[in-house]
Amino acid sequence: MITVIKVGGNITDDDASLDQFLQQVARAEGPKLLVHGGGKSATELGKQLGISSRLIDGRRVTDAETLKLITMMYAGWINKHIVAKLQALGCNALGLCGADGQLVPSVQRSPVPVDYGFVGDPVENSVNVKLLHSLLEQGYCPVIAPVTLGKNGQLLNTNADTMASVLAAALSAEQRVQLIYCFEKNGVMNDPEEENSIVRELTPNTAEKLFDEGLIHSGMLPKLKAAFGAKERGVERVVIGHAFRLHELTKSDSTCTLLSMS
Amino acid sequence: MITVIKVGGNITDDDASLDQFLQQVARAEGPKLLVHGGGKSATELGKQLGISSRLIDGRRVTDAETLKLITMMYAGWINKHIVAKLQALGCNALGLCGADGQLVPSVQRSPVPVDYGFVGDPVENSVNVKLLHSLLEQGYCPVIAPVTLGKNGQLLNTNADTMASVLAAALSAEQRVQLIYCFEKNGVMNDPEEENSIVRELTPNTAEKLFDEGLIHSGMLPKLKAAFGAKERGVERVVIGHAFRLHELTKSDSTCTLLSMS
Repeated sequence: MITVIKVGGNITDDDASLDQFLQQVARAEGPKLLVHGGGKSATELGKQLGISSRLIDGRRVTDAETLKLITMMYAGWINKHIVAKLQALGCNALGLCGADGQLVPSVQRSPVPVDYGFVGDPVENSVNVKLLHSLLEQGYCPVIAPVTLGKNGQLLNTNADTMASVLAAALSAEQRVQLIYCFEKNGVMNDPEEENSIVRELTPNTAEKLFDEGLIHSGMLPKLKAAFGAKERGVERVVIGHAFRLHELTKSDSTCTLLSMS
Repeated sequence: MITVIKVGGNITDDDASLDQFLQQVARAEGPKLLVHGGGKSATELGKQLGISSRLIDGRRVTDAETLKLITMMYAGWINKHIVAKLQALGCNALGLCGADGQLVPSVQRSPVPVDYGFVGDPVENSVNVKLLHSLLEQGYCPVIAPVTLGKNGQLLNTNADTMASVLAAALSAEQRVQLIYCFEKNGVMNDPEEENSIVRELTPNTAEKLFDEGLIHSGMLPKLKAAFGAKERGVERVVIGHAFRLHELTKSDSTCTLLSMS
């Protein structure tokens, strides 16, 4: 079973949290790969440089300057910082972004109705699975930054939840795959105020119901869409849970949200 | 024959020059890998961020902030920018730094007599040649940024000329290798004022003589040391020449400096 792990920005932004999470990654058994986002790091670097990031509906607009920032920060600092830490923990990490070896070809999002700039969505059935299998077979743990390649050599900013989903789905064509979305909570909550109100099993129907009741906020929707998408396309097990409990999450369904199609 | 290409900062700093050079890289036949430096890009980003880089004898002192800058700029922006451009030219580039998959393990330079900070020198006979061969056999062109990994997960800034030398030497244990140092001149000059005064064949003796006569400036010495080091450790052909003529340099000894041990 291949384990695809996605980690959120609230974990990678904080060095102590990142360390605690990476210890769990290093302990996880079997072939594994890690997809990371960038959290607030690029926005903060942008501020220092006097580049303000424009958001539409909570999504960053990626102009040329922001794309450079993101590529530096996500594919450069965060990616190599994680690789270095994993190597120190005895995990043979190898950092890539979606542009490397055509790992995740993408297409720039249409400027209509909203122009998000240099943002790309992965092209279906085009992941370079051969490269991933070759690296996993050689014992490497690929660490993947959410930057991809569109037409004519255009780098594109890509949603990390989607990257993880697309990679897991592509790998599942040949092998059993589980996909674990790690963040700073134990799962999807019935009551955001109540730590113990985890939804143990989430179906598309219950997700819609929770959203209608205002219990899932809109920021969670892209993650759930990506997560259900992976499940639909053959990923055996999709879990949402706490980054510090990753090692348990790879083996047990307790204290987390397990996705189910029915 | 594997071709290891090193390109200098004056080429990568300028987008038009970089394009012209990368067209040559894409045309070069056979398995190839490219090592790049970072030129003035990190210094300029540092200035924008109010981080000044301290130089001792023309060498940058790498404190923690500068290391972050370098990793962002070299392993992030420049590396992926080159990968994207090569991909658009039909060359299946894949970007790595020395930390990825333990490609180039290094040791932090002693703080005595001069403390250069987070600067590392590659450990002899420790290059992950297996990873490189696997990528080359699969048709990838590795693009390598001069950031390496020391003890305890410490990222280290490493001289790109040395990286290229060490990688070429390591590959030459199993296969024939040529190493081509590309920069903005046609080779080592007898007379810096005279474009056509290229030293066609350079031996350690003639290099020393030229240096004593003040015709080779000190900035060129580390490159020559790295270049002769590769030749000594089994690299079949070592050439210094113009980045825009790379394709010819891979095949002919005209209009360039060819290194010779005697």
